Amino acid sequence: MAMPKAPQAFPRAEYLRRLSAVKAEMRRCEIDALVVTTQSNITYLTGYTSKSGYVPQGLIVSLKEEEPTFFTRRQDGPAAVHQMFIDRSRVIGYPEDLIANPDKDGFDAVIDFLNDKGFAGVGVGLEAKFISAQTVEKFKRRMPKATIVDFGARVHWIRGIKSDLEIAFMREAAANADAGMMCAKSVIRPGVKEADAAAEIIATVVRGVNGKPSTDVSSFFLCASPRSATPHIRWAEDVFRQGSQINLEFGGVRHGYIAALMRTFSIGKPSDRLRRVHEGEVAGLEAALAAVRPGAVCGDVAAAFNTTLKKHGFEKESRCGYALGIDWTEPTASLKEGDRTVLKPNMTFHLMLGNWIDEDFGYVISETFRVTETGAETFSKLPREIFEL
Amino acid sequence: MAMPKAPQAFPRAEYLRRLSAVKAEMRRCEIDALVVTTQSNITYLTGYTSKSGYVPQGLIVSLKEEEPTFFTRRQDGPAAVHQMFIDRSRVIGYPEDLIANPDKDGFDAVIDFLNDKGFAGVGVGLEAKFISAQTVEKFKRRMPKATIVDFGARVHWIRGIKSDLEIAFMREAAANADAGMMCAKSVIRPGVKEADAAAEIIATVVRGVNGKPSTDVSSFFLCASPRSATPHIRWAEDVFRQGSQINLEFGGVRHGYIAALMRTFSIGKPSDRLRRVHEGEVAGLEAALAAVRPGAVCGDVAAAFNTTLKKHGFEKESRCGYALGIDWTEPTASLKEGDRTVLKPNMTFHLMLGNWIDEDFGYVISETFRVTETGAETFSKLPREIFEL
Repeated sequence: MAMPKAPQAFPRAEYLRRLSAVKAEMRRCEIDALVVTTQSNITYLTGYTSKSGYVPQGLIVSLKEEEPTFFTRRQDGPAAVHQMFIDRSRVIGYPEDLIANPDKDGFDAVIDFLNDKGFAGVGVGLEAKFISAQTVEKFKRRMPKATIVDFGARVHWIRGIKSDLEIAFMREAAANADAGMMCAKSVIRPGVKEADAAAEIIATVVRGVNGKPSTDVSSFFLCASPRSATPHIRWAEDVFRQGSQINLEFGGVRHGYIAALMRTFSIGKPSDRLRRVHEGEVAGLEAALAAVRPGAVCGDVAAAFNTTLKKHGFEKESRCGYALGIDWTEPTASLKEGDRTVLKPNMTFHLMLGNWIDEDFGYVISETFRVTETGAETFSKLPREIFEL
Repeated sequence: MAMPKAPQAFPRAEYLRRLSAVKAEMRRCEIDALVVTTQSNITYLTGYTSKSGYVPQGLIVSLKEEEPTFFTRRQDGPAAVHQMFIDRSRVIGYPEDLIANPDKDGFDAVIDFLNDKGFAGVGVGLEAKFISAQTVEKFKRRMPKATIVDFGARVHWIRGIKSDLEIAFMREAAANADAGMMCAKSVIRPGVKEADAAAEIIATVVRGVNGKPSTDVSSFFLCASPRSATPHIRWAEDVFRQGSQINLEFGGVRHGYIAALMRTFSIGKPSDRLRRVHEGEVAGLEAALAAVRPGAVCGDVAAAFNTTLKKHGFEKESRCGYALGIDWTEPTASLKEGDRTVLKPNMTFHLMLGNWIDEDFGYVISETFRVTETGAETFSKLPREIFEL
């Protein structure tokens, strides 16, 4: 029996519109074929979210054809047939002798295909910034007459402006993240193990709300005293104590789309210093959101935050956020002073105000938002407070 | 207040022994400094498990010094001070202007350090296979008098033979995976959402058993009918049905060390075909484990499996497994015919017998094992059966 198509996250017309934008960019770069290797870009162009990208895979977009062709390890072909909007004949599984083979890998199958299909002597685009030196070399060596062009983060930039359908998934993801944060409020108590709290929170985010479960586990960080000045520890083999501060960062996920969220918790009364930085950061957050509108640039949003925070006697060294959509950080626009990216409706960002000030003092709060026609819409419904437990 | 050191997963002597092995290999490669960039290798050499590796970071091992030096984004420095066995002075946080900067990144800080510390004209090793073409180019361009050597997977190979302390963590991780599989047995029922089952299983693995919680969420795949012939779908927005087959793959994690596990579930009586492939695979699994002993090669183990499975009328196209330890797949030894890697005591493998035969028919079973002085020790205590629900 053949693998059926899964219910599709987006209609075909949406994928064709995305592909048209990529093809227009390919024409500008004078390439006839593009090999998309970034997992999130493959998700964007096809709906594929299966996690096969730990071995070589490539989505070949050709100017000559409406639908792209996907090369993946043979065992992952059925998942691609199931999830991708493209015709099943366009999923090509490469054989197992290309796995753990010191001489050849899946990219050799991609190159064979390109050479066979008339791309041997034309412009071929790679996402060179995101693949290994060895792989780029292989394309150059095995396609000596082709002009290999680095397509950079162009697909990521096209992804930057979301459709209303993508926004709908991000709102659903945000509701799941909110549920996780409310769960944290109920399970974090003195004497409870960090791992036990993490287990409950992660399960809550996965279950989701409104009949819309998360479709993946996103990043998850629980940094509690004495680790509250660090951002990226999953959790520690430790228990919460009276007086502990807990900084949480995680997101809900819907069909690849993430809504990220950070909040700070305190078991017992927060210190004066923590309360003061919180007040400054929330004022900065509100000032940043007030600066969001089509036509403003990313740097304006960061400047509004930084100026306000400084008035409260604090500074934040790291940027105030970044474009976010599929796979957490999109390597494109940054909410930092000097970033001249012009805001447009339905761009989405993680306004990430984590501030790790001293080795023993940090604070986190964030909002995932979209640019609207007139300002900003935040997706979380949670209050902007320190959750005192 | 300074960041305290966390309770260390391993004693200092263990890290120094690991570093000595790396330094011996560096001498063979005629390099004076090695820039370790693979996250799992950094964990191996220092104990660091914080997830800061999405921006550039590098652990510099020098022949001239006992302890390595770690470069990371400034905000991640306190986590490194907390978790790594090295002196706090050896953690160097690079500034935020190297983040999301089109002209410079954290590797420029690493290169500045190497050039300043007398490595400008000597042999410098990179894990070139695992970093971008752009980064390798940058080292060559900014260190024109150095000899840049690709260190390949040499650190991964050194990791291949575990110490008894590492094995102890893998046993603990396996107990957590077993608990997750038993949870699956209790929560998978007709009408239950795949996401709800995933939430419960993941939470159980994170909570762990015997007071040893998992320290991270590992990969997790729940592929249920009609997706039971695919390996890498997280779970689907679907419910279980009477007659559904469910293939599960996940692992427990202790301080970076993973024990992986796969089992097949059937709601109702398994089909004859499923039962026959199960019998063949279990016989093959037992034959493979019986072939494990110091001095045998990886290919012998695969041949024992393949020969036995063929006698039962089935074949498995993909390899039978791979080295596993920190971060799931170690890119070194493969349990596949032709692999001449000689087995040695305390090498650890995932004997991964997932077999995705047709577009609508697949089966999974696996064991994580170590090579002992005389044979193999499997870490899971679960029966090798199809769990019939």
